[in-house]
Amino acid sequence: MRGFGMHSINDLGWIEKDRPACGPLDAIIRPTIIAPCSSDTHVGHGGSGPKTDLILGHEAVGIVDEVGAGVTRFKVGDLVAVPCVTPNWLSRGVQNYRSFSHDRGMFGSFKFLGEKDGVMAEYFHVNQADPNLAHIPEGVAPEAALMTVDMMSTGFHGAELAEIEIGEKVVVIGIGPVGLMAIAGAALSGASQIFAVGTRPKAAEVALAYGASQIISYKDGPLDAQVLEATGGKGVHKVVVAGGGTQTLAEAVRMTRPNGIVSNVNFLDISDQITLAALDWGLGMADKDIRGSFCPGGGKRIQRLLNMIEYGRIDPTKMISHRFHGFDAIPEAFKLMDTKAPDLIKPIVYLD
Amino acid sequence: MRGFGMHSINDLGWIEKDRPACGPLDAIIRPTIIAPCSSDTHVGHGGSGPKTDLILGHEAVGIVDEVGAGVTRFKVGDLVAVPCVTPNWLSRGVQNYRSFSHDRGMFGSFKFLGEKDGVMAEYFHVNQADPNLAHIPEGVAPEAALMTVDMMSTGFHGAELAEIEIGEKVVVIGIGPVGLMAIAGAALSGASQIFAVGTRPKAAEVALAYGASQIISYKDGPLDAQVLEATGGKGVHKVVVAGGGTQTLAEAVRMTRPNGIVSNVNFLDISDQITLAALDWGLGMADKDIRGSFCPGGGKRIQRLLNMIEYGRIDPTKMISHRFHGFDAIPEAFKLMDTKAPDLIKPIVYLD
Amino acid sequence: MRGFGMHSINDLGWIEKDRPACGPLDAIIRPTIIAPCSSDTHVGHGGSGPKTDLILGHEAVGIVDEVGAGVTRFKVGDLVAVPCVTPNWLSRGVQNYRSFSHDRGMFGSFKFLGEKDGVMAEYFHVNQADPNLAHIPEGVAPEAALMTVDMMSTGFHGAELAEIEIGEKVVVIGIGPVGLMAIAGAALSGASQIFAVGTRPKAAEVALAYGASQIISYKDGPLDAQVLEATGGKGVHKVVVAGGGTQTLAEAVRMTRPNGIVSNVNFLDISDQITLAALDWGLGMADKDIRGSFCPGGGKRIQRLLNMIEYGRIDPTKMISHRFHGFDAIPEAFKLMDTKAPDLIKPIVYLD
Amino acid sequence: MRGFGMHSINDLGWIEKDRPACGPLDAIIRPTIIAPCSSDTHVGHGGSGPKTDLILGHEAVGIVDEVGAGVTRFKVGDLVAVPCVTPNWLSRGVQNYRSFSHDRGMFGSFKFLGEKDGVMAEYFHVNQADPNLAHIPEGVAPEAALMTVDMMSTGFHGAELAEIEIGEKVVVIGIGPVGLMAIAGAALSGASQIFAVGTRPKAAEVALAYGASQIISYKDGPLDAQVLEATGGKGVHKVVVAGGGTQTLAEAVRMTRPNGIVSNVNFLDISDQITLAALDWGLGMADKDIRGSFCPGGGKRIQRLLNMIEYGRIDPTKMISHRFHGFDAIPEAFKLMDTKAPDLIKPIVYLD
Repeated sequence: MRGFGMHSINDLGWIEKDRPACGPLDAIIRPTIIAPCSSDTHVGHGGSGPKTDLILGHEAVGIVDEVGAGVTRFKVGDLVAVPCVTPNWLSRGVQNYRSFSHDRGMFGSFKFLGEKDGVMAEYFHVNQADPNLAHIPEGVAPEAALMTVDMMSTGFHGAELAEIEIGEKVVVIGIGPVGLMAIAGAALSGASQIFAVGTRPKAAEVALAYGASQIISYKDGPLDAQVLEATGGKGVHKVVVAGGGTQTLAEAVRMTRPNGIVSNVNFLDISDQITLAALDWGLGMADKDIRGSFCPGGGKRIQRLLNMIEYGRIDPTKMISHRFHGFDAIPEAFKLMDTKAPDLIKPIVYLD
Repeated sequence: MRGFGMHSINDLGWIEKDRPACGPLDAIIRPTIIAPCSSDTHVGHGGSGPKTDLILGHEAVGIVDEVGAGVTRFKVGDLVAVPCVTPNWLSRGVQNYRSFSHDRGMFGSFKFLGEKDGVMAEYFHVNQADPNLAHIPEGVAPEAALMTVDMMSTGFHGAELAEIEIGEKVVVIGIGPVGLMAIAGAALSGASQIFAVGTRPKAAEVALAYGASQIISYKDGPLDAQVLEATGGKGVHKVVVAGGGTQTLAEAVRMTRPNGIVSNVNFLDISDQITLAALDWGLGMADKDIRGSFCPGGGKRIQRLLNMIEYGRIDPTKMISHRFHGFDAIPEAFKLMDTKAPDLIKPIVYLD
Repeated sequence: MRGFGMHSINDLGWIEKDRPACGPLDAIIRPTIIAPCSSDTHVGHGGSGPKTDLILGHEAVGIVDEVGAGVTRFKVGDLVAVPCVTPNWLSRGVQNYRSFSHDRGMFGSFKFLGEKDGVMAEYFHVNQADPNLAHIPEGVAPEAALMTVDMMSTGFHGAELAEIEIGEKVVVIGIGPVGLMAIAGAALSGASQIFAVGTRPKAAEVALAYGASQIISYKDGPLDAQVLEATGGKGVHKVVVAGGGTQTLAEAVRMTRPNGIVSNVNFLDISDQITLAALDWGLGMADKDIRGSFCPGGGKRIQRLLNMIEYGRIDPTKMISHRFHGFDAIPEAFKLMDTKAPDLIKPIVYLD
Repeated sequence: MRGFGMHSINDLGWIEKDRPACGPLDAIIRPTIIAPCSSDTHVGHGGSGPKTDLILGHEAVGIVDEVGAGVTRFKVGDLVAVPCVTPNWLSRGVQNYRSFSHDRGMFGSFKFLGEKDGVMAEYFHVNQADPNLAHIPEGVAPEAALMTVDMMSTGFHGAELAEIEIGEKVVVIGIGPVGLMAIAGAALSGASQIFAVGTRPKAAEVALAYGASQIISYKDGPLDAQVLEATGGKGVHKVVVAGGGTQTLAEAVRMTRPNGIVSNVNFLDISDQITLAALDWGLGMADKDIRGSFCPGGGKRIQRLLNMIEYGRIDPTKMISHRFHGFDAIPEAFKLMDTKAPDLIKPIVYLD
């Protein structure tokens, strides 16, 4: 079968591989819509280290093509959303109450983009279908469902991680798809004033539609100075970092009040060095938590996000800026994500 | 000065009293808008035990008329919202991280309706003005601000107490003002499907506007049976009890999934007996929490709720069904609340 | 093979069955030490409803006798502790952050005593060996390890559920093995004063050894009155219910301060009715949580408890009051648990 | 009156000042035992910026010498423990559920060592006596009580902030008094294996007495390498930082498992720069929280810690390595703390 991925760092193209084999608890999926993600391009450029002959992609909805003998909830022909994070639920790493992301070590639950081939292929493999897949409810468009598997899950998680209380003021740094969903997630978590940080006009428009109160631009000066000024010198209660560079975390800490939380869902580069002045962090005693987490895995998470669409709490399709058709369009969609055209938010590719 | 209240149980009318004295940390407020609440009528009928010569009312916005020498944040002439719960912040009872409601014993932070006269008077007293009052931001209508001091605070608290996670299914029992705000609070906390329980058509309409997915009526059979049927036998994750009788808690427990939470913000009667079958509560081992809490007190809480209005997250004035004018209209508004006319949600009285 | 269990309610004795079959993810265990538990006798008497031809027992350590092809962490001959609660980790029910006890519905994760035969047999079956078994560390005696699988796990959970903060005052109702471990768990969670409720002298002595500050007896008057008197009328912050009858929960609520938690780990009878006066529960608004939960399942939990023994934080063998030897001694040990001799705390049976 | 403090950075000595005035809610205390703390020497050397003519010291027990008219719980002659952090409970900053440390801005609740003179004086001032002082229970030695006001409160807080679950493995970096109390706090929070990091033999001995399982030394190689080796490459669940330099936080992050927490209670220097490699922090997605907090303030906190001593949960006097007598001994005790003699843990000075 054919898939799109990386031969090696910065050498991307079509890869020919065998159709993956299906274990007794697993499923093989034929994707019907996929979306490239900046994590794919990040990995393609070596951001998580060297990889070879790896099919990329981790956002898909599709049709179940095969299931193992031990699968009971899903059958061939089912239309499913596939979480980008699919924990091994038989590992010890999931037996805690904080996250299911690190099944057999750090990021262990993230199988695509490293441990195995991704979804930009004719077929792809999902470990443990029963706990990891989600049926798409009637009334939820497949392209909307596609938005749940990473963008909604990760963006909302940025808001969850920040433990936003009703009425708190929040900054979301970055208005790419994850940032946009962090904005929506913050609004759905009870934030009052939401500052969104970004510059791209189309994304800014969507940010306002998802609940941002106002847009702040890097171009108008240091972010923390802008936020402090806009809040009477106090700063905000919570900051979600969904974009930016290595200095962003320090800016985020500076704009956060004591007892606040900085919540990072931005994929840092393997070569990044974070620096933070002790003074900005209150000499280590300011009760400013710094957290960084990962898209929560598993089918129940996605089911709940699909319910958010089903009951009208959010329409994630506002993020879809570009729609491509046909398997052969994958490279073009991928390149668009890589080069980040000014009007780009999220491209998707209909495969059938 | 004149106030409206109870001479004794079920004997209500005008009461003549001295203007209250202002302690060094306190304020005297001249109310400009007040709202009677079912808690006032409940107390008037003896629901919290006997009281005599007590001015009722605990929901007001008004003008600061006098401040003590130690007050620094407020001055005479300021327009303020007054939380119905005004803790004594110098007590030990507030030094915990769960609630500030029980300053010197159970409900100690609730001063009106018992410890001292209420707000349906020409003037009323607020202990510790600095921590307990809130300025009303520009752009927030005083009648909207009035909704924060108990209805929004209590209703939202029902949702907060239920620790709703994004995508969870929620039942709110009761569509009086507290129930309506619990619905809005659930939606603002990330609920997906929200069942609202009630029968009054006008309130049902507002419930849908605040985010209810559908209305369930007591008249169509046992509530738990209806909810179980609507959820494929599973029940919901969280239930907020904002109305009902003594059997309601047991119904709520039955409609709740394991790992769920029943959150009560309904003011039970002093003579009520709660009964619960062990089987319904999973033989005591079903991880179904039963919680009951109180409107959180203090000025910061109200400030944050005012910010929710300021930034367009909610318009609580949809609840205001009746507007009265003039001090002499208080008894009529009170009676309307007491008799609960079919089209009643929340009456308010403009005093000036 | 032979096992000890119930032919039907109140008709107990030896049962002959086939050795259980081992699924691909599972293990068959040959128990080396077992302990009867009051839950076994409770079920034998019909406390959870009718059962027939069911081998009882859910507390065992033993030797792995067979593993399925998919098992990687355990091999034949390994000495293991077997959690009494063994979730199906492929279910959706475990994908939440509150408990793993309800895998496919209420108590679904508790397989013994209902869904399948128990451990008082020559061999027994464990679903999903990798996530559910635990190796016993060197230096931890097998009989100490046996105490982790239910008594330590459940008793400590009572303390965990109560969210004890450093310095809080706690009541533990019941000084059977679960109550004793709740006392130890409370001490290991930072409680200051711990009241233990019970009457049996030997158990009382062990309670003091595990950290109880003083013993309270039912015989000296209502429990809540005694606790209120001993705390200057204030009551305690947290109560763990590990014994008692249907009135115990109401007593527990009455002795709990506002902002407190009542945590039930007592197995209520299927016919019990709980009653609670609204006044005792603060008219539903006193911030007194009522929680009831179940022994947390899975191998990681047991591993952590074994570590507590390994590093000298607790010696659970102080609870072992009676040691029997040989498979044929099971009925006698069971009967001892059923009749609760005055000097009984926990009997165990060495099978080899 | 006379006090010991800093004329300016690095210029320490006796300072003559007026006895402080007592506000209506306040108290004046005559200290009977004081303890210098490394925070005092840190400030004396300019670690928190320039200060002039400031009496140092923030750890004292003493006798109430005067109370304001509004004080109700304390009277002249009472023996009290004085929290080092005394929030202004009338501020808005305390109205949150995370910490009470930042009353009118960062560290606002810490009045000594900056906002006003400290306790190494004939008399000192305590704002808001009712919420901020604590009576010393009978049976608790005053020198034990002295250990609660900062060392126990801060050290235990390090453990609390790390949210240690029963059976988790913990590293405490630093075995000064705060580190020692973090070790005891970790043991009292349910930790199993506790690694203590330090080199001073006497402190190491006390660390083992408070619950450390083993001692690790900086001298034997990088800390994270040692901890990873001792835990089979996995690292620990939680790390409390109670000492070290600017590189310590990065080491702590490296030795922490995913889903872990690094909890800092070390007072960083105003000139410190923290650096952290993205890779060590799991590219920002490893669910490794970094927290930094402050000694919790208020009288209830201290009361609870005094109860821990009263009920025999801990004996903090094991930390007292040097006892001085008389007011004139303060400079010698201070110097001892400053120069950190090898056998020093905590010096105290009896003033009467």
